[in-house]
Amino acid sequence: MNMHAKQTASTDVYPTRLAAEEWSERKDPVVWSKWTPEAPLTQGQMQSYADNGYLVLKNLFTKAEVAALQAVSAALRSGQTPVDDKDKITEPGSDAIRTVFRLDRHNALFDRLARDSRIAGIVQFLLADDLYLHQSRLNYKPGFNGKEFYWHSDFETWHAEDGMPRMRAISASVLLSDNDALNGPLMLIPGSHKTFVACAGETPDQNHQSSLKKQEVGVPSHDSLTKMADAHGIDYAAGSAGTVVLFDSNTLHGSNGNITPFSRSNAFFVYNAWSNRLQAPFAAKAPRPAFLSELDPKAPIRIDAGALV
Amino acid sequence: MNMHAKQTASTDVYPTRLAAEEWSERKDPVVWSKWTPEAPLTQGQMQSYADNGYLVLKNLFTKAEVAALQAVSAALRSGQTPVDDKDKITEPGSDAIRTVFRLDRHNALFDRLARDSRIAGIVQFLLADDLYLHQSRLNYKPGFNGKEFYWHSDFETWHAEDGMPRMRAISASVLLSDNDALNGPLMLIPGSHKTFVACAGETPDQNHQSSLKKQEVGVPSHDSLTKMADAHGIDYAAGSAGTVVLFDSNTLHGSNGNITPFSRSNAFFVYNAWSNRLQAPFAAKAPRPAFLSELDPKAPIRIDAGALV
Repeated sequence: MNMHAKQTASTDVYPTRLAAEEWSERKDPVVWSKWTPEAPLTQGQMQSYADNGYLVLKNLFTKAEVAALQAVSAALRSGQTPVDDKDKITEPGSDAIRTVFRLDRHNALFDRLARDSRIAGIVQFLLADDLYLHQSRLNYKPGFNGKEFYWHSDFETWHAEDGMPRMRAISASVLLSDNDALNGPLMLIPGSHKTFVACAGETPDQNHQSSLKKQEVGVPSHDSLTKMADAHGIDYAAGSAGTVVLFDSNTLHGSNGNITPFSRSNAFFVYNAWSNRLQAPFAAKAPRPAFLSELDPKAPIRIDAGALV
Repeated sequence: MNMHAKQTASTDVYPTRLAAEEWSERKDPVVWSKWTPEAPLTQGQMQSYADNGYLVLKNLFTKAEVAALQAVSAALRSGQTPVDDKDKITEPGSDAIRTVFRLDRHNALFDRLARDSRIAGIVQFLLADDLYLHQSRLNYKPGFNGKEFYWHSDFETWHAEDGMPRMRAISASVLLSDNDALNGPLMLIPGSHKTFVACAGETPDQNHQSSLKKQEVGVPSHDSLTKMADAHGIDYAAGSAGTVVLFDSNTLHGSNGNITPFSRSNAFFVYNAWSNRLQAPFAAKAPRPAFLSELDPKAPIRIDAGALV
């Protein structure tokens, strides 16, 4: 019996996968702490995160730290560091690895990165709770024919298919390659995190098997996306390797394909508040597998300070 | 008997569709005139065009002119203005028009635009010759699922498949929608026009039928593109509707797909120097059809000055 089953079901404040798409106001704070001079980010950064639903942090890591993360990433991609079959996705027609799930369990340096105070310390402040990793992954996106990733709110899927009750989770994408506007960077719609777009359509069984490639259910309509983009515009996260993008679980995001020769890779950590642990899925028959959704965290992560290497 | 057959074949200074890819130096000037204070562009603009192989011109047209072009474009796209079947491509599963070829023949305003001194006057100066339209088209690129267009040099195809002897042609893309970095703008590799990348592979019969959707032959290798992009970087043409991008026939260009809600459209005119009229294709059995390649221009275009509307 796992933690998932032990949780008491709460009222569903974000019903989704409905007969028709529906907008409603966010019912949770974005920032759960009050700012003080001791906070691990400036008041301006905190306000920007609260207003926009994301924050780009540059120059957090030294060149040596970035180089070490890139070296470990290359070893994972090439297969030099072995990864269980169930935790990886390979490129079609090749052994090259596109995604490594449960990254923190496959490598000590990435585990340490996930618990680094420069990232997790800020997230803990913003969520005002202990943290655990709901998901962690290493993404490798090739150049020349990198595929797009369509617009979505992570929270919609985590709520519907994983049973995450409230909006009290933050994702961190640590860029391991330089990203500019042209090589398919993460695009975000500022302010979109303040509205919950309940999606139309029932969740198919085993939806994650196709939705990891191309999401069909749980994405906003063209009409909703047009309204959001017209109201708020579209921003993107650019920066050199080592840049960190923090974004709220409900911020609409996606990325274009990439025909440039410049590949991208990033380490991706989803921090959920300990008090926001999973219940039964709110709009799916069975929860997604553990590599996508941590059902039974043993304890909050320990946050470490100091250099990675 | 068409003009194509009447031309005397010249030596092929740009052999392509070879057993292996090969780089060679450009054998033609980029700018064929000497700058004087009477030139229709500044000396700085001319030098930038010569160095980079493209030039972005903003604020050439009034708001009323841009609005008139957009209105005519919308009427062509919707079918309100009829277009011969052979001159249009429709969206899969719909009557909505994606491309209108021989745009200058389908609409008087676009014919006038093609001959406007603000565009054609500059092109005529740069090429130092009379001009005719080798190709003209209206492109409509939808949002949400706009497809990428892979890297290529137009000249390589025009030489191999259309019989254009030398690099003495310039394309003008007139933006009819706002373009920024994120909605799949035209990307260009500055300086790439100085090198001819002869492509590997024989030209299949009727190659244009598939190459308009996805070009397989006549595109540089990943290795060549990486070298070019590493050496020169990648730029993109952004601007509000009415912006004009001029680029050399041999400048490597392409565009990413577009998941944003913001569709794009542009009018596209290819000006060839009168003295550079087509011969037999240099690396294909038969020339491409007339909607892609003007085989028999009757006379140079007349360049008109003054407001469009």
